[in-house]
Amino acid sequence: MERITMEHGGGGRATGELIESVFADAFSNEILSAMEDAAVVEGSAHIAVTTDSFVVTPPEFPGGDIGRLCVCGTVNDLLMRGAVPKYLTCGFILEEGAELAMLRRIVRSMAETAREAKVQIIAGDTKVINGNGGLSINTTGVGFVPEGVSIHASNSRAGDAILISGNIGDHHAAVLSSRMEMKNTIKSDNAPLNEIVERLCESGVEVHVLRDVTRGGLATVLKELAISAGLRFEIEEEKLPVDPQVRDFCGLLGLDPLYMGNEGKLVAVVAGKDAERAKKIMQNAAYGARAERIGSVFAAKEDFDRGKLVLHTKIGGKRNLDVLQGEGLPRIC
Amino acid sequence: MERITMEHGGGGRATGELIESVFADAFSNEILSAMEDAAVVEGSAHIAVTTDSFVVTPPEFPGGDIGRLCVCGTVNDLLMRGAVPKYLTCGFILEEGAELAMLRRIVRSMAETAREAKVQIIAGDTKVINGNGGLSINTTGVGFVPEGVSIHASNSRAGDAILISGNIGDHHAAVLSSRMEMKNTIKSDNAPLNEIVERLCESGVEVHVLRDVTRGGLATVLKELAISAGLRFEIEEEKLPVDPQVRDFCGLLGLDPLYMGNEGKLVAVVAGKDAERAKKIMQNAAYGARAERIGSVFAAKEDFDRGKLVLHTKIGGKRNLDVLQGEGLPRIC
Repeated sequence: MERITMEHGGGGRATGELIESVFADAFSNEILSAMEDAAVVEGSAHIAVTTDSFVVTPPEFPGGDIGRLCVCGTVNDLLMRGAVPKYLTCGFILEEGAELAMLRRIVRSMAETAREAKVQIIAGDTKVINGNGGLSINTTGVGFVPEGVSIHASNSRAGDAILISGNIGDHHAAVLSSRMEMKNTIKSDNAPLNEIVERLCESGVEVHVLRDVTRGGLATVLKELAISAGLRFEIEEEKLPVDPQVRDFCGLLGLDPLYMGNEGKLVAVVAGKDAERAKKIMQNAAYGARAERIGSVFAAKEDFDRGKLVLHTKIGGKRNLDVLQGEGLPRIC
Repeated sequence: MERITMEHGGGGRATGELIESVFADAFSNEILSAMEDAAVVEGSAHIAVTTDSFVVTPPEFPGGDIGRLCVCGTVNDLLMRGAVPKYLTCGFILEEGAELAMLRRIVRSMAETAREAKVQIIAGDTKVINGNGGLSINTTGVGFVPEGVSIHASNSRAGDAILISGNIGDHHAAVLSSRMEMKNTIKSDNAPLNEIVERLCESGVEVHVLRDVTRGGLATVLKELAISAGLRFEIEEEKLPVDPQVRDFCGLLGLDPLYMGNEGKLVAVVAGKDAERAKKIMQNAAYGARAERIGSVFAAKEDFDRGKLVLHTKIGGKRNLDVLQGEGLPRIC
């Protein structure tokens, strides 16, 4: 079995051969082939930039892998500002002993997902370190922001509706199941959300905030948005879409889907008047079939009410939710 | 002693506190403080984009550290396309057990170097993995390319002069000395080369190629440029600037400075007529005091002559140089 050696990271002939045989084949385009220190590409008056490192173990899991994950995570972060994703860079850190066959599968998966998400990989870097055959990938994304678009975290308003694009907790539950070698068919939701965002923006729906639900889960995201806007967010437990198998899995382990990460779900805060239309648009777009309106935004009655996130439970109670405490599962992305 | 724990990577409260207490303090600016999924910033018609991961051990070495190194490496890659460096993103992968005090020093060093290099850090990400207290940093840079600028690897022409901006091998020798606990005063040359490039470009010197000398060393860089242009590069051994202490160090270990990496040196290929002027400009700019003209570019006489790199040795011999073979020292950057 071919494996990565320290020589692959030396910057000489072996590095060149690795790049040629693994990366060039999958990512090949004119810009990368030039092998310049930096890529020079077309720009735009306003650009969105985001960066993320991915360290998930195992690197291949039910429904996806670290290659698909890093492209989706980065593309989705650009989309959350209303940007059109354009370019990706990728920095690989390979541990000595990593299997070349696995690396090839991951790189192919990145290339396929990049095509799906309509982004071009324009720059890359590879380093090799001592270790146990693992790898991590940093992806940085650049997108173009159309004139007049202003979607940002503190932009929620009283009267807005809160929507989620589908089931929560899938990615987290899939990675955890895989690590615990549990027998179930839970799959990661890792997906690029271009179509949902494009259609929402084109439709004229008043989109105030978009945020993808990753580490920390839905509750953490909503709590942060409530604080950021100084408003009160209320959501209804019975509206939260959760896959039955994920619900059972969480019950068994004492986990709360509200704090479990996804990699292909977004929260949209839109004008209340547009809520129904936004839901239908999301439901008809790729990866949005199970979209739901889950709550509303209210003006804070008093100072202590600012930044509150209230959950109306199924049995009629109310719970104040905070951001994730403690460890979560750090290596789901 | 405070250390990084897995909880710092969970995406919840501990992650927030780490970002607040370590990164926000040093990097603070309006764009970062907004804590959005992506930064939205002013763009330009042509942008340069580059990415690099840094895994050097030890992370602090004589003359620099991984924080200064990652900013210099990325800024220099942008400069090598004639771009004005504007934005940086940084992705930290911290190993459990990393010292917070060390992380703070590295982050401060990054912030200072970013100021020196006139770039703004606009996006970041932090992950925590199992390990032995180490860290790696990915930096991705975005720069603006002025209209009409076209500096690229295959742009050398017969009759051009080859210049180097200063002593070769310093960074490599410094990191290796530090790892071997050798007693000397060799320091890394890690430096941002903005001033050299700005002044060369403003002066009207016909700059055809710029390339920073990193992994693989000067010989690897020049061989790649010769191949890329299909021309013959010739350099003179006696013109190569090498610090006497670095020369002794290399002699002792049987290393060749021609294959040792730098992190603050560039090769410039300029029109022969401008060679003297270019040398003076470099010598008067920050980090260019020891700049030298080291050789010339020739038309290939025959097909076998294309892409040759010839070294004229001090004793009057000729040697064909190839790119670095074997391992080098993978973790110098």
